[in-house]
Amino acid sequence: MINFTVGPVQMDQETRNIAAEQIPYFRTPEFSAIMKENEGLLCKFFDAPSGARVIFMTGSGTASMEGGIMNFFTSQDKVLVVNGGSFGHRFVELCQIHDVPFTEIKLELGQPITKETLSKFDNGGYTGMVLQLCETSSGVLFDMNLVGDFCKRNGIFLFVDAVSGFLADKVSMKEMHINAVITGSQKALSLPPSMSFSVLDEAAQKRCFENNVKSMYFNYADYLKNGERGQTPFTPAVGTLLQLNEKLRRIDSNGGIIAANEEARKRAEYFRSRIAHLPLKMFVSSEHASNCVTALSPTKIGVNAHKIFEIIKDEYGIWICPNAGDLAEKVFRVGHIGSISKEEIDKLIDVFDDLVKRELL
Amino acid sequence: MINFTVGPVQMDQETRNIAAEQIPYFRTPEFSAIMKENEGLLCKFFDAPSGARVIFMTGSGTASMEGGIMNFFTSQDKVLVVNGGSFGHRFVELCQIHDVPFTEIKLELGQPITKETLSKFDNGGYTGMVLQLCETSSGVLFDMNLVGDFCKRNGIFLFVDAVSGFLADKVSMKEMHINAVITGSQKALSLPPSMSFSVLDEAAQKRCFENNVKSMYFNYADYLKNGERGQTPFTPAVGTLLQLNEKLRRIDSNGGIIAANEEARKRAEYFRSRIAHLPLKMFVSSEHASNCVTALSPTKIGVNAHKIFEIIKDEYGIWICPNAGDLAEKVFRVGHIGSISKEEIDKLIDVFDDLVKRELL
Repeated sequence: MINFTVGPVQMDQETRNIAAEQIPYFRTPEFSAIMKENEGLLCKFFDAPSGARVIFMTGSGTASMEGGIMNFFTSQDKVLVVNGGSFGHRFVELCQIHDVPFTEIKLELGQPITKETLSKFDNGGYTGMVLQLCETSSGVLFDMNLVGDFCKRNGIFLFVDAVSGFLADKVSMKEMHINAVITGSQKALSLPPSMSFSVLDEAAQKRCFENNVKSMYFNYADYLKNGERGQTPFTPAVGTLLQLNEKLRRIDSNGGIIAANEEARKRAEYFRSRIAHLPLKMFVSSEHASNCVTALSPTKIGVNAHKIFEIIKDEYGIWICPNAGDLAEKVFRVGHIGSISKEEIDKLIDVFDDLVKRELL
Repeated sequence: MINFTVGPVQMDQETRNIAAEQIPYFRTPEFSAIMKENEGLLCKFFDAPSGARVIFMTGSGTASMEGGIMNFFTSQDKVLVVNGGSFGHRFVELCQIHDVPFTEIKLELGQPITKETLSKFDNGGYTGMVLQLCETSSGVLFDMNLVGDFCKRNGIFLFVDAVSGFLADKVSMKEMHINAVITGSQKALSLPPSMSFSVLDEAAQKRCFENNVKSMYFNYADYLKNGERGQTPFTPAVGTLLQLNEKLRRIDSNGGIIAANEEARKRAEYFRSRIAHLPLKMFVSSEHASNCVTALSPTKIGVNAHKIFEIIKDEYGIWICPNAGDLAEKVFRVGHIGSISKEEIDKLIDVFDDLVKRELL
C-alpha cells in the first residue's frame, strides 16, 4: 500500500531500521543525553527563544492540545479560539471542558484568517489565543505572522497547534511571537504514532509552574522538572524518542528546517501541478494552502469523495485520506508529508486518470 | 545489551518484524477488525465476564491508572487504596488530585496483604478498592483471591493495576471479582512502550457513562462509543496495536493464558534457584513473590545496590533494574518478563559470580 494520508505516514528506511531493534532501558545517563539533544534540536527547528523547553508527551496530538489548555490557561483567562475546522473545534471543546473563558472566531472550513477579522478583537482584554498552524481537516494554512503581530500588540499568550504543519510549513516561535507550539510524531516527522511534543518559551513554563493542574499525567511542571535531567515522569515511547533523535540529527545535517520546509513545498507544488487537468477542485486557494495536505472536491456531479477513497484503497492499493463529518462525501485529502517519492505521486495521478477513464471521477 | 528490567523489555522477533514494516492508515474496516480481535483476546486472557470491553489508551500505565480513577470514581465514593510501594502511592496521589475520598492501607514495601488487614475494613461503607496485582517496586504479589472475596462480600467495585503482572501472574476477573484491570504494552506483552489497556466489565462501563469526566483525552465513554466500530477517538499507536494482535494470537495458539503464566513461573523459579549461593537476599518471600520480578538486597556490608546496577550496565552490557526512592542503594530488581532465554539468565548469574570474585558483591 502507498500512504497519502496525514498520519501515520510513510517512514524513512532509517526510522524503520531503528524500529526493528530492541528498545533500551531508559532510566540511564545515556538515554538522558539523547533526550537533551532531542530537546535542543526541537527548540532549534521551532526557532524557539533561549530558555525554551520541550514536553515529551506519550499520547496523540490531542493529548498535547489538552495538556496545553490545562497548563497554560485558567478560569481567569480570556482566550480567543480560532475554529476553522474539526481541530479548531476541538480547542473549543477543550476550553469548555476545562472552564477556560473563550471567544470563538468561527471560520468556514478552508477560510483563511484576515487582518480585518483579527482587528475586531484588538483591545478586547484577551489574555490568550489558540489556533492551528494548518487546520488539517481543510488544509488551510493560517497566516501566523498576522496572528503573531496581533498577539504581540495585545500582549496575548499564543498557543499554536502545529501538529501536522511542523516541518511542512514555516513556523518560527521568535518571528511569530509564539509562546507554546505542538507537533506530533506521526506527521511530517514520519515516526510511528505514539507521541506529541510541545515547545514552551519561558512565559509558558511560568504558567505551568503557577497553575495548579488537576492531573498527574498532564502535569507539565512535573515534566519540566524531570526534563532537567533528561527524563520524563512516566515511561515514554522510548523507541519513538530514539527514532526522533535520528530524524532530527538527519534534518540538521541536511540543511536544517529551511531545507525541510522547502522540500515539503516542492512536493506539494509538484502534486498540485499534476492535478490541473483532473475534475478536482482545490478546496483551499493555493496561496492559503498548507504544504502538508491538499483537500480536493470532485467537480463531476454525483461523485462521492468517500467512495473514491474506498475504490483507491481497495482496487489500487493506495490510501488517500477521507474527511470526517459534514464534508465526508464531498472532500477527500491527499497528504504530502512522510517519505513520499515523485514516482509515488505519479502513480496516484495515474490512478486518478484511470478513474476518469472509468467515469468514476 | 541484555535487558532484565521491568520495561521496556526484550521483544520477540515476531514483534520486531512488524516494527520494521510501514504503519497502515487506520480509519478503515480492516484495522477495525484487528481492534475487535484485540478486544476479544484481551477479554479472554483476563477471563472477563461477558459484555466486557477494552479501552485502548495511548499513554503509559499511569495514564490508565489516572483514567481509571477519573472514570470509575467520584467524590461520592469511598475508596480503599492499598499503598504497598511507589505504584500504590501513585493511586493515593491520584485520589487526592481527583477529590476521590479514600482510606489508605499502608503496607511496608514487600509486605503482603492479609485476611486480618482486610477484615478491619469489612462493613466500612467502602464503595471502591484499588491496588496493584504486583507492586513492581518490591515484586510483592497481592493475594487477589483474598481481595476479591473481601470486595464481593462488601459490594465493593474493584479496580486492579496489573500493568506488570498480567501474563506473568494469574489474573481472572471472574474468579477474583475484578471490575476493571489494566496492563501495559511494554511489560509481559513485550511490545514497545506507548500504550496501556484497560478491561472493563459492565459495571465499570456503566460508571464511565454516568460519570461526567472533565477530560477529553481520558473520557472513557468516548472510547467505548468509538470502540463499538473498532476505533479510538484519537490516533493510537497503530504499530503497537498490530504487534499486540500478533502477540495475542500467538499466545492463543500456544496454550493461551495458562501456558503464558506457567512459562513466566518457570522462568522466575529458574532464576531464583540459581541465586541461592549468592550474597543476595530476596526482598519478598518466595510465596508472595510475583513471577514478573525479583527484588534483591546485597547482604554484604557496604555493597551499594545502585552501584551494582551501574557496574553491570557499564562493564558487562546488561541492564538490571535499579530501584528509585529510599531503597535505591539497598535494593535492585531483576525482571523476568519479555523475551529472555535461560542462557541469558545463566549469563547474568556468571556476572554476579564474577562480581563476588572481584569482591564487589
